[in-house]
Parts: sequence; structure tokens; C-alpha cells
Amino acid sequence: MNKKRTIKIGDIKKAAVLGAGYMGSAVTFPLYDSGHEVRLWGTWLDDDIIDAVKAGIHPKLGRPLRDGVTPLHSDRLKEAVSGAQYIFIAVSSEGFIPVFELLIEHLFERVDGPRTVFCLTKGFVEMKGRVMRTSEWAKKRLEERFADRPVGEPVLDWVSVGGPVKAVELSRGIPSASLYGVEREAVMDTALRFRTPYYRVVPFQGVESVEICAAFKNVYAMGIGICDGIFKKRREDEYHNASALLFTQGINEISVIVRKAGGDTSCVFGLGGTGDLYVTGRSGRNREFGELVGAGGEPGECFVRMLRAGRLAEGYDALEKGVLWWQSIGGEKAALPLLYTLHEVIILGKNPQEAIYSFMEEYGETR
Amino acid sequence: MNKKRTIKIGDIKKAAVLGAGYMGSAVTFPLYDSGHEVRLWGTWLDDDIIDAVKAGIHPKLGRPLRDGVTPLHSDRLKEAVSGAQYIFIAVSSEGFIPVFELLIEHLFERVDGPRTVFCLTKGFVEMKGRVMRTSEWAKKRLEERFADRPVGEPVLDWVSVGGPVKAVELSRGIPSASLYGVEREAVMDTALRFRTPYYRVVPFQGVESVEICAAFKNVYAMGIGICDGIFKKRREDEYHNASALLFTQGINEISVIVRKAGGDTSCVFGLGGTGDLYVTGRSGRNREFGELVGAGGEPGECFVRMLRAGRLAEGYDALEKGVLWWQSIGGEKAALPLLYTLHEVIILGKNPQEAIYSFMEEYGETR
Repeated sequence: MNKKRTIKIGDIKKAAVLGAGYMGSAVTFPLYDSGHEVRLWGTWLDDDIIDAVKAGIHPKLGRPLRDGVTPLHSDRLKEAVSGAQYIFIAVSSEGFIPVFELLIEHLFERVDGPRTVFCLTKGFVEMKGRVMRTSEWAKKRLEERFADRPVGEPVLDWVSVGGPVKAVELSRGIPSASLYGVEREAVMDTALRFRTPYYRVVPFQGVESVEICAAFKNVYAMGIGICDGIFKKRREDEYHNASALLFTQGINEISVIVRKAGGDTSCVFGLGGTGDLYVTGRSGRNREFGELVGAGGEPGECFVRMLRAGRLAEGYDALEKGVLWWQSIGGEKAALPLLYTLHEVIILGKNPQEAIYSFMEEYGETR
Repeated sequence: MNKKRTIKIGDIKKAAVLGAGYMGSAVTFPLYDSGHEVRLWGTWLDDDIIDAVKAGIHPKLGRPLRDGVTPLHSDRLKEAVSGAQYIFIAVSSEGFIPVFELLIEHLFERVDGPRTVFCLTKGFVEMKGRVMRTSEWAKKRLEERFADRPVGEPVLDWVSVGGPVKAVELSRGIPSASLYGVEREAVMDTALRFRTPYYRVVPFQGVESVEICAAFKNVYAMGIGICDGIFKKRREDEYHNASALLFTQGINEISVIVRKAGGDTSCVFGLGGTGDLYVTGRSGRNREFGELVGAGGEPGECFVRMLRAGRLAEGYDALEKGVLWWQSIGGEKAALPLLYTLHEVIILGKNPQEAIYSFMEEYGETR
């Protein structure tokens, strides 16, 4: 694979990646390989990771980063974003608000043209008791903070990044396609700057569609995990029929959600939904959490046990907040039977086997 | 799970299943459990299977059939279909024409109302040098044979059965959803007769959409297998990003095919495409065949070796005929880059790693 950098020094643009966990660190590979100056900033929770990266190996990815990537500790955010045209937010959903509040103070600095924020954080945030999509919240916060900015001058462009990309695989050059949901068409060309032979950036018009897919796929991946947990317990062998049913229903419920939110469902049936749920349902923390629950674990306990082991199942929070958000946009319970089944199991503590069987027995009963 | 039969003797309808391999035998479970009289007819290749079933155990499913199911040898087709309102064709695509030619002679017998044929056979057939969908061929053949039938009296109703159902799992009561593509809306209610708590029949208006999904999902499952073969060889660990890309592309190419054929793409994004490719890409003969090819095996040799072991990879024939059929309906090569990549590898013998990498490097290059 071509890793040579043939871009002239004068052309080099700067990219700051915020969050030195799996995904933030993995995305530095294609950013560097596509000819950018890359800084990797770790949050206050990532100081040990930054130490380890400086010593040679990223502890989560199990390999060194590219030589040219600059690792920076949590007290050096200013240095990380200084002059950076591209800012990748790659913290977990819990860290999003505090990190964004720190970042916002650095956005007064001018760079040539509006900055672009690429958001890899998935999920919902809460503001004054109201649940919002991440980009929605950020937009409101920017409007407040930059209220005196001249009208018509955008503070920044927002891009939601989704699609089927497991961080460890990306860092090892496994061919991966990533969906970049943009608002302005002009930003599509910016997104395409990050392409490498192994990192296929696919631009898509529609921030919210990508964002909704990214959040809800974690929720439905827990459902596939629950199915695994139930049937692994019952039988040694295969149970693909049942998980295929849940997979398909998950995709179709995400399409109902995106349609209701005014988005574009081609994202759901493409990389954003189908592609991403395919990987997330097969491996990772949300599936693992679901599997523990399906095997009989108490959801809250399983969540905390995984968290203590450094494995945050983001789907838990996305499910709890996602249902509130769905209600807030006028969505009906009957339209999303699997989502509410998962809510009953994971948040309300209903027996998973009974709940999943009951969902399946009602499946397709509309006729 | 409720396996009691509470239907009165007078109501019992008769179902004949033709083909005693995996799927034909597995479908006898819900047919019996939903209150039908079931005959399982084995082809001339299935005589040993019928012997074994009579002795107690179905050799492929590894378990006995329901007590009430009648196993019949290949010389007893007449008995199998006599008075049967429902005929399930569950032979492999290779066996379809010879079995249908035998069956057609028994279709002169009247039952109350038109008979319904449920076709579980997937793929294409050839007639006088022209490649056709199975149902298209059958319809032409029926028109020829029953040319003197009074106009307006249907010989039979045709239903294409698809969706994510692995036979072994179905026979073990793993909850499964099956898609029944019908032509006349009235037939939907017939399809619903086969529902059990573990077998969720979902009727769908559109024979050809279900049929196209069922045939092409075997083709794209070979592609996911090829991806497995390539990356397993290269690395010990995970490579979900690449297979998610192929999975998503496969679904979207099937949607292009169905749209071109005048079908309904909701089938593709539902159980017919997404659901079925999910299971077929994870396990089974087509994926296994692809894996051998991805690992460096010569496609023709791999196909024959599997065939000799009783494992027919139906996707091979579906790919070869499917490309011809696509051309015959005026489809363009450029619309289906993954299909043609698979054709190059499997039929024309191109190096799989080069072909898949080249596909991936061009992925999303339309912008």
C-alpha cells in the first residue's frame, strides 16, 4: 500500500485529533499517510496513553503510531489545535461536552478559511434537561459563544464521521470505508483529502443522517449481542437466523428514525447503517455488553464491570437518551418495537430471553 | 415453544415437499407444526436420505423429522403430490428443471382451488440458450403445457421463498423469519398458514424481487468468503471493516439489480437481501467456497472438490448465469463493480487479492 508522501511542504495542512483512545489514534494513520501534519491530543484520562505512545507503542492499538505524528498531553490543547484547519473530535460520548468546552475557546483563532470539525463521537448529549444530537448541541453552543460574530461568517464546518471502521483494523491497514456526513457540498472535497488506498472516504450530504446511524447502530449492536448471549447459552452451535432477523430489523428501525428526523435513508442502507451495524454487531464493546446481558447478567452491573475494565459500552447511554430523543421529536413507540424491547431489557431490567422471544413472536404480525 | 396441533382433521391441508436435502427437510418442521399433513419426497439423489429418515435420523440435519411427516422415495412423486394444495420445491438449482418436468404431469389433477407452489430453489435456469429467472421459466413452461386450459383459470399460484433461514437452525427451533414473495394478494393469507412461534412467515408482494435477492445473495456471499480467505491468510486477527464494505456493496448492488428488473427494493433492504446475505455471508457453502478461492485455490477445482464432498456452492452457477441474465435485461457492467469483480475472480480466474484490492481502491471514486 502506498504510504509515500508526495505533497510539498507549503501545501501541508494541519490536523488535530482530540482523544487518544482507539479511534482517535487509529485515524492518525490515514491522516498522516494522506499528507497532513498530525497532532494527537490526549484528554486528562489519556495521559498514560500519551506517555506510552512517546515511549514507542500505543497501548490500545498495540503498535507504534506513524513517526511524524505529534503526541500531546492533556495540558497542551492550545498547541494541538493552533493553526489546525482540521479538528477531529474522537472522545467518547461522555467526554464530548467537557472537551468541546475546552476546544471552543481556541476557535477564536483564525486560520485560512473556516475550520472543519470532524466528529467521530457517537451518541446524544443533554442540555438543560433536553436530549440532543451531538451536532445539534454543538451548533447551539457555538451560536451562544459566538453571538457577536459577523452574520454569515461560519465559525466552522461540521462533519459527522460514521461507517464500518474498527480502529485496530484501520491502524493495521485493513481496507476500510468511512462515511463523512457534511452540510455544505464544498466540504466534500475537504473530506476527500484524507483518502488513502486503504482508507476510502465516502462523502455524504447530511450530517444528521450519519450521526443518527452512528448512535443507534451501537444500540442495535447490543441487541445482536443479547441474541448471542441467549442462544450461546442454550446451544453450542449456530443461531444466525435469529441474529439476522434482529440485524435486519435494526437497520429498518434506524431507517424509520432517520426518515422521521428528515434525513436521507440511503445512508442507513449504505455504510452508515448496514455497514456499521455489520461490524459493530460482530465485535466490540456494545456487542460484548449485550452478550453478558443475554447470558443473564444484570445490565447495570455488566455495564459497570466493563467500564471498570476500561470498556465503555456507549450503546447503553445512547439507548437511554435515544428513546428520550425519539419521544422529543414526536416518534411513536409502536414504530420501533425492537428499540423498545431493548429498552425494556437493558434499562428496565426485563428478562432478555422472554423479551426477545416475545419480540420475535410478534414479528411481522401487522398482517 | 408451542408444538401442539389444535386443528381439526377436516381442516388439514396437504403439503408436499420436493427435495429431501437440508432446506426441504427443515421446512417440514414448521409445516407440520402449523397443522398440515406433510409428505417429504426425495429425488433420485435422495434415496439414501429417505432410507435414513425412515430408520430414524435425517443424516444432514442430524435429527429425526416430526413423527407425522411421511418420507417418500423418488419413485413415489405421484403419491407425494396427490391432493396436495401446497407444493414446496426445495431441490438445488441443478435439479430444478428435471423435477419440475416430473411435477408438471401431476398438475392436471384438480384440488379445491388453484394449487400453490412455494419455490425454495434459488438461481437461474437456461431455456433454448436464454437465461431466465426460475419463476419466469416455470411460467413459460406451464403456459406451453397447459395451452388448452380455459383462459383465466390459473394453473397454480407461484411463491418465491427467501430470507435468512439456515435449515439446520430452523429444524432446531431457532427463531427464524422467512420471506414469502407472492403475486396475488390473496396468496398472502395462504403463506401465513405456515407460521409457528419460531417460524415467522412474512408475506411480500413481488415474486421476482424475492427471487433475485435469493439468487444474488449466494453470489455476494462468495465475495465475503473471498475476503475472509484473503485476510485470514494475511493476519490472525479481525478484518471486519473490509467485509462490511463488501457486504454493504453487495446489498446495494442487489438493489440496483432489483430496481432494473422492475422490482421493489424494500425486499433488498429487508429480509430478502440484508437478512439473507447476513446469514449466507457468515456460514454455509457459498461463503466456504469463496474462502477457498480467497486463500488461493483455483475456483473450478475448489468447486468440484466441494461438490464431491456433497457441498454444492450454488453461487458459482448463479454468478455465471446471473451476469448473462443481467446483460439480457440491458444491465450495464459499470453499475455492478463488485459483481463483475467476482466474475473476474471466480469465472475468469483473476487473482482474488489483486481484484479485491483494486475494487476497494476504486470504491467511492465516482466523486
